[in-house]
Amino acid sequence: MNERTLNDSDGDRSLAIVCGGGSLPYALADAAVRRGRRVVLFALRGWADPQRVAAYPHHWSWVGQIGRLLQLAEKEGCREIVFIGSIVRPARRHLFVDIRAIWMLPRLFRLLKGGDDHLQSGLGRIFEERGFRLLAPHEVAPELLMPRGPVGGRMPNDRDSADIAKGIALLHATSPFDIGQAVVVANNHVLAVEGPEGTDQMLGRIVELRSNRRIRAPLGTGVLVKAPKDGQDHRIDLPSIGPKTVEGVKAAGLAGIAVVAGQTIVADHARMAEAADQAGVFVVGVDTNGIVP
Amino acid sequence: MNERTLNDSDGDRSLAIVCGGGSLPYALADAAVRRGRRVVLFALRGWADPQRVAAYPHHWSWVGQIGRLLQLAEKEGCREIVFIGSIVRPARRHLFVDIRAIWMLPRLFRLLKGGDDHLQSGLGRIFEERGFRLLAPHEVAPELLMPRGPVGGRMPNDRDSADIAKGIALLHATSPFDIGQAVVVANNHVLAVEGPEGTDQMLGRIVELRSNRRIRAPLGTGVLVKAPKDGQDHRIDLPSIGPKTVEGVKAAGLAGIAVVAGQTIVADHARMAEAADQAGVFVVGVDTNGIVP
Repeated sequence: MNERTLNDSDGDRSLAIVCGGGSLPYALADAAVRRGRRVVLFALRGWADPQRVAAYPHHWSWVGQIGRLLQLAEKEGCREIVFIGSIVRPARRHLFVDIRAIWMLPRLFRLLKGGDDHLQSGLGRIFEERGFRLLAPHEVAPELLMPRGPVGGRMPNDRDSADIAKGIALLHATSPFDIGQAVVVANNHVLAVEGPEGTDQMLGRIVELRSNRRIRAPLGTGVLVKAPKDGQDHRIDLPSIGPKTVEGVKAAGLAGIAVVAGQTIVADHARMAEAADQAGVFVVGVDTNGIVP
Repeated sequence: MNERTLNDSDGDRSLAIVCGGGSLPYALADAAVRRGRRVVLFALRGWADPQRVAAYPHHWSWVGQIGRLLQLAEKEGCREIVFIGSIVRPARRHLFVDIRAIWMLPRLFRLLKGGDDHLQSGLGRIFEERGFRLLAPHEVAPELLMPRGPVGGRMPNDRDSADIAKGIALLHATSPFDIGQAVVVANNHVLAVEGPEGTDQMLGRIVELRSNRRIRAPLGTGVLVKAPKDGQDHRIDLPSIGPKTVEGVKAAGLAGIAVVAGQTIVADHARMAEAADQAGVFVVGVDTNGIVP
């Protein structure tokens, strides 16, 4: 540890990036490096991609090794931490809580009994009590946030806009129940509400419903709508979309994707626009009330 | 047609039973016959079971053959009609709307654009305008309704009761969006919200989530909670459960089933109790506020 890591100026301090799955962690790391920051990746075993992690200073740990993570982050001179990437709720046997975290075990198990919100905001508090500042990915790199309006050349039509409004209203209604952040609405029908299976598997269900002729919405109708839960800790779990989401939406025969502008993370806007145009679907950032700008 | 079919006394009039899938239509027909009524089954092709239908006076028709159905019901002297059994929203190509129904085509297509509620209450109105009285299955046979309290020997424990209350509250919240009538809640986590796939397939998802270790609730925890939508036409689409539901719940590793007492149909209480006890799950009728009596 040298003097610089103790310096308080933003550009000098090292940033700890706790990395889940997907490509977002590396988009964030690159954005931080472009701003002249040093990054240290804390790659979560089973979620982070070893090949991509290898390109940065990094440490591996299990999801439950909070004690090790905090100690290493301190040693690396990181006072700011950002969580990014997908972490599906881990199985208890994968937690491998280490001995240094033994003091927080009762709290962890209490958190694990709550919904995902509790788990995530609870973890945030644990870090803050140890003197770390928990940042939202978009505090580090605002360019990762979804803008208002379309990304790519397509726009929702009137029927899509009605489906989007219904989807956002439904997500507000289910928000207090701490369930998924995504629904599919087609021609005014709710086709799916996301549970612990995640967005990709929910989209797979639409494919199945179509092949079983359980839904009548013709190909090219219907919208995947995503929104953060009301009151969710935006530093830890903003919804995100990427080219893989576009692929899933295309395979499900939907017209497009609507997310809340400024409250959704998109790793690479240019690549997203390209993927959307190639798939012939729209990707649009809407207002929190579900209105398409 | 003889004089008796025109008689107005309840026991004498013939009852038209429009039959979807499952065993409920025959439980209802038997209950009506026990009361001394003549029944005529209008079996829906693709849904009703030909072997079971054959035991009663019957006519077959496609879902869309409303004109034919009304004409035959009049000929048979039926002034009262009851809809029972599962009818998953039919594919448009299965409707085969007949020429006698041509006058109601615009209305039908408008109905098909709405949610299931619209479709069902709309169909009810069409029958009533033609002079038929639409009855709820439990107006014909109150013994088909789920009672308050347990059917079978098991009761929900405190954790199950909390899951039940959460499930009922969630169903109230999603009710205005015209989606499924069932959810699964385990240890305070919402594991699934039913969409057009139906209860059986939703339960299949729990099996999959368990095998993918996406959920941590141990075997024997979690409740399938069913409730009618608020403001739903109870004459047409009360939720129902049967021994097959018990099998699905057992396979999903849940603790039991909670439904709203007096607003859920159970074909055969004795058989249900036996199936529940054999599977080691509870089946309980709760109050509309989700409280276990």
